[in-house]
Amino acid sequence: MRNFKYFAGAVLALIALPSAAHATVPEESAYIFNTLLFLIGGFLVMWMAAGFTMLEAGLVRSKSVGDICLKNILLYALACIMFYMVGYNLMYNGVDGGLIGSFGAWGADDAAALAEDASFGANYAASSDFFFQMVFVATTASIVSGAVAERIRVVPFLLFTAVLAGVIYPVVGAWQWGGGWLSEAGFADFAGSTIVHSVGGWAALSGVIILGPRLGKYSSSGTPKPMPGSNLPIAMLGTFILWFGWFGFNGASQLAMGTAADAIAIANIFTNTNMAAAGGTLAAALLTGLIYKKIDLTMAMNGALAGLVSITAGPDTPSVGQAVLIGATGGLIVVFAVPFIDRLRIDDVVGAISVHLVCGIWGTMAVPLTNSDTSFAMQATGVGAIGAFTLVTSAATWLVLKYTIGIRLTDEEQEKGADMVELGLEAYPEFGHGSQKFGV
Amino acid sequence: MRNFKYFAGAVLALIALPSAAHATVPEESAYIFNTLLFLIGGFLVMWMAAGFTMLEAGLVRSKSVGDICLKNILLYALACIMFYMVGYNLMYNGVDGGLIGSFGAWGADDAAALAEDASFGANYAASSDFFFQMVFVATTASIVSGAVAERIRVVPFLLFTAVLAGVIYPVVGAWQWGGGWLSEAGFADFAGSTIVHSVGGWAALSGVIILGPRLGKYSSSGTPKPMPGSNLPIAMLGTFILWFGWFGFNGASQLAMGTAADAIAIANIFTNTNMAAAGGTLAAALLTGLIYKKIDLTMAMNGALAGLVSITAGPDTPSVGQAVLIGATGGLIVVFAVPFIDRLRIDDVVGAISVHLVCGIWGTMAVPLTNSDTSFAMQATGVGAIGAFTLVTSAATWLVLKYTIGIRLTDEEQEKGADMVELGLEAYPEFGHGSQKFGV
Amino acid sequence: MRNFKYFAGAVLALIALPSAAHATVPEESAYIFNTLLFLIGGFLVMWMAAGFTMLEAGLVRSKSVGDICLKNILLYALACIMFYMVGYNLMYNGVDGGLIGSFGAWGADDAAALAEDASFGANYAASSDFFFQMVFVATTASIVSGAVAERIRVVPFLLFTAVLAGVIYPVVGAWQWGGGWLSEAGFADFAGSTIVHSVGGWAALSGVIILGPRLGKYSSSGTPKPMPGSNLPIAMLGTFILWFGWFGFNGASQLAMGTAADAIAIANIFTNTNMAAAGGTLAAALLTGLIYKKIDLTMAMNGALAGLVSITAGPDTPSVGQAVLIGATGGLIVVFAVPFIDRLRIDDVVGAISVHLVCGIWGTMAVPLTNSDTSFAMQATGVGAIGAFTLVTSAATWLVLKYTIGIRLTDEEQEKGADMVELGLEAYPEFGHGSQKFGV
Repeated sequence: MRNFKYFAGAVLALIALPSAAHATVPEESAYIFNTLLFLIGGFLVMWMAAGFTMLEAGLVRSKSVGDICLKNILLYALACIMFYMVGYNLMYNGVDGGLIGSFGAWGADDAAALAEDASFGANYAASSDFFFQMVFVATTASIVSGAVAERIRVVPFLLFTAVLAGVIYPVVGAWQWGGGWLSEAGFADFAGSTIVHSVGGWAALSGVIILGPRLGKYSSSGTPKPMPGSNLPIAMLGTFILWFGWFGFNGASQLAMGTAADAIAIANIFTNTNMAAAGGTLAAALLTGLIYKKIDLTMAMNGALAGLVSITAGPDTPSVGQAVLIGATGGLIVVFAVPFIDRLRIDDVVGAISVHLVCGIWGTMAVPLTNSDTSFAMQATGVGAIGAFTLVTSAATWLVLKYTIGIRLTDEEQEKGADMVELGLEAYPEFGHGSQKFGV
Repeated sequence: MRNFKYFAGAVLALIALPSAAHATVPEESAYIFNTLLFLIGGFLVMWMAAGFTMLEAGLVRSKSVGDICLKNILLYALACIMFYMVGYNLMYNGVDGGLIGSFGAWGADDAAALAEDASFGANYAASSDFFFQMVFVATTASIVSGAVAERIRVVPFLLFTAVLAGVIYPVVGAWQWGGGWLSEAGFADFAGSTIVHSVGGWAALSGVIILGPRLGKYSSSGTPKPMPGSNLPIAMLGTFILWFGWFGFNGASQLAMGTAADAIAIANIFTNTNMAAAGGTLAAALLTGLIYKKIDLTMAMNGALAGLVSITAGPDTPSVGQAVLIGATGGLIVVFAVPFIDRLRIDDVVGAISVHLVCGIWGTMAVPLTNSDTSFAMQATGVGAIGAFTLVTSAATWLVLKYTIGIRLTDEEQEKGADMVELGLEAYPEFGHGSQKFGV
Repeated sequence: MRNFKYFAGAVLALIALPSAAHATVPEESAYIFNTLLFLIGGFLVMWMAAGFTMLEAGLVRSKSVGDICLKNILLYALACIMFYMVGYNLMYNGVDGGLIGSFGAWGADDAAALAEDASFGANYAASSDFFFQMVFVATTASIVSGAVAERIRVVPFLLFTAVLAGVIYPVVGAWQWGGGWLSEAGFADFAGSTIVHSVGGWAALSGVIILGPRLGKYSSSGTPKPMPGSNLPIAMLGTFILWFGWFGFNGASQLAMGTAADAIAIANIFTNTNMAAAGGTLAAALLTGLIYKKIDLTMAMNGALAGLVSITAGPDTPSVGQAVLIGATGGLIVVFAVPFIDRLRIDDVVGAISVHLVCGIWGTMAVPLTNSDTSFAMQATGVGAIGAFTLVTSAATWLVLKYTIGIRLTDEEQEKGADMVELGLEAYPEFGHGSQKFGV
């Protein structure tokens, strides 16, 4: 049938048809390729939710493991619902150089968006784009949970997540990816070193400060007490999941796969993403080996993530060697940032602020090194504007929650552990901690 | 721009060439897209085997963890072999409105199916379809293992799996997906709420009843004793793996990606699958919070899975909001179904019957709400017919096994634990349970 | 060539355009399909790094878990960097029937490779191929870490990895996949039973012998002491991850997806890969059940991996039934190989030598059974040449390291555990081992 249409319309034309003409991708094929990119990228980014969960579950003490698991699955679910109900349209619908889009649920008044687009005008299935953007917002929310772990209550944490996923992130996203003022001004943030990672990092920073450190974390003189993670192999697993998922995060942010040029760009992005992570891992490991005479495992994990965050603002323009260096610099930064933040008595359980905020800023500022279409001043403007907005709105949200329903587990509750207090269970009832608890 | 290049090189040719003609996908490209969909969907569904394994390994007591791991990898391997030897042809080859297909191994007498199909008549590589259908049957078998965990012997469990994967599931599958009487009658079950999930659920239900509860699970008055899972973060990981794999399960059940219409359908399915899971998670968590004053972590996991099972019968027709509601209803159902089944002294270790059977029925009955091509009566007919067949054949198989080789570990064996008795090892020899056991 | 066929065969025909002609894939679409195959295959193989990590972390004792995690993430990162700096060009650039390619970093002097290839001459994005080949080398390095676990120091292990990934593997790879003398002679190794797996296995074997067994592993009479893995469910997870990733490993080794014939080949490879793993799993489990009266869980895992390694040299030519048999034979082999190697006092912690070396040889020698383009003599030549080269160069590297910086933890250090000595931490500080250690 398809052939018939073709023949009927083009018999004469085809006599002379040059080979170049035949080489190109038909519009409908491009439509499928583009949609497929969003779907593959989307499921990879969705899988990052498991990565954050495992990373955080491995790095908290065993009495908070169930609680952090619960927060992570609920925040993912809630972020999806909020982005559907409010966020997507706020971020994308009618921003047009402005500050925000419109209010309303996505697709609710637009059934046509979900039906076949016979003209292929949009170049991809509407819901494939929605799916991909939706899993991004969950990443932002996941960043916060690790920083505030072990002493925040579940309910206020979820309310904060709702505001972050429904309003704060979409507004910032509208400025750039929605076609708002920042994108018009020339800010560059390919896959979200700033828009996703530093937004998550600012939200985490304000939360940690307002919430205060875990019980017993700092002595009266400010010396931090080590509180080692209870299950390092699952933290390692989480790191690998994030590394794996990041190919979707950065690669599918090309937003199209319907031409050879897009395919080349995506392949370069995959390669650079991997190399930046490799550079970050090795740099952090090497530096901790030199400083502490022992390689620090959790710092190697954070180095990998630091490399990934650092390349995310511009994974498409660096050469492979430049990508290694951008990632390695991120890895070095994180080795200094983690103890520095700890010395300020900012108790970030998993190092999320160092990884996502500090390296998110570094990655964004590094873009002009390899991309002449942008400038340090413009990048700084974006970092500053988004940082200020996120910090103010996040802090306001945390403060409202603090002085209304309360956000912090009491000292007694923290001693018992978030799992017993909030969930009434233990994550590992038969292991060491359990034995201790049950007097075995 | 792409168009411009095109025109520049082919001006004369294009004078008569209508754009609509060029927009379509060439047959060979469609063939590749369709095959690719099966392969991506297939590896995602294969990965669900790891999800079930982690979920079940996290929810059993530590003395049964190695045993449940062994059962899961063996059941996956065995289900694949049985489906190849018997199941595929029984399900698909020559059903033609009838009850079953033919007996014989797939592809054995049909080498041509594996060679190039020059006419692209089949629209996809034969073995890509086989691969995708094969991993589905493994899912059905995985559902059973969690319900009967901790007290069933390995060998009879595997023999049951062989019957389920080789005969019971393929016969039921033939009725609908093989083109049998149910599909002719108008039953609708897009990706298998009934055919996969409730079949697994019925098989599990009959097994649990015939097998009896774990030693000590119910007091003489019937009060259930809590037997908490030994490793909740890996149960959480299993839940995320299943959620992730479900995109392949539902998405690739579109069975084609060679047109824009298919791509749109798949994108809608991905979105609805995610939203139903999100709805199920939040609804279950919220409800347990209201009822018990604490949010139940394992119920949140089961809520996610309930949402996924609920949307599986019809992920293509609901709007996004409807998908949330269908999933949320599943999440609410599971919160009531789990304690209800427990009160009946049906000892389902992981809640598989509530999730896969009860929500599988709900999801199947919910299809007419958004799909006018089907009816409640027709859906009930399919649910009833498949349920009756599966329940009878499963129960018969379990009973034969019970009264021949025996299916249940003795009380002494259960006390020692399935790992020591069946495998001669411990899953965590150095942790709490191990210390206890070895007198350290 | 495809173009030639098109024009030559269809000049006249095109006037009237037969449907067959239009059915073919446009060049740019083929370019995208090919690139996409490398990217999907690449991220799946990258994910295998997590699989090896979990497998090894689950099979070592708890005092070495953090150390093996660290080695695995560092070896992955380092292998990527070394392959970029040296390996890729050594393996692929200008081999031309010879022994090695050229020295130099990939892409450094060839920016054009990363830009758009307007003629689609290469058929895929240059960096997509680089990405896919790069993750392969990491697999080779991962094989070694498990065998030498628990008593090798981190730094010499990494230096060995650098030599393996930068020189040894690329030289061997050049002989076959780079177009060197072995490929010209007619050796067949589709996805690397020999080039990846037995190379890793030979490197592991030489390392284990030169390094010596773990403290206390063998009594003076040579009786091996069981040292059970500390966390079997994560070892199970690692096995599933490897099985899952292997679809990319074998499937994308087809190196093209731009024609229906390629799609068919990939689908057949996926199916055969799965069936060989299933066969290996069942055969190993059954055989241990018969020999030991209990099914051995870690042997079932190794059986799965043995099946996968066995099919890797030729996953494209066997029928489904033949694939089951090739995999099952691998599963049987591994059940005998593991205790045999142990009896030689070769302390291979995870069974890597049995799985990757012994079954790698079996798989390579099995190719002529289903592929008439090759011969046993030729296969043996490849196995022998690659084995001799790898064994000699690996042993030389290990010996240099041993007599310069030293490679082995002292007895006292092994008693304390690699985690405390090398990393200054515990992987599970709150569980059994931790309690014991901290006197709780």
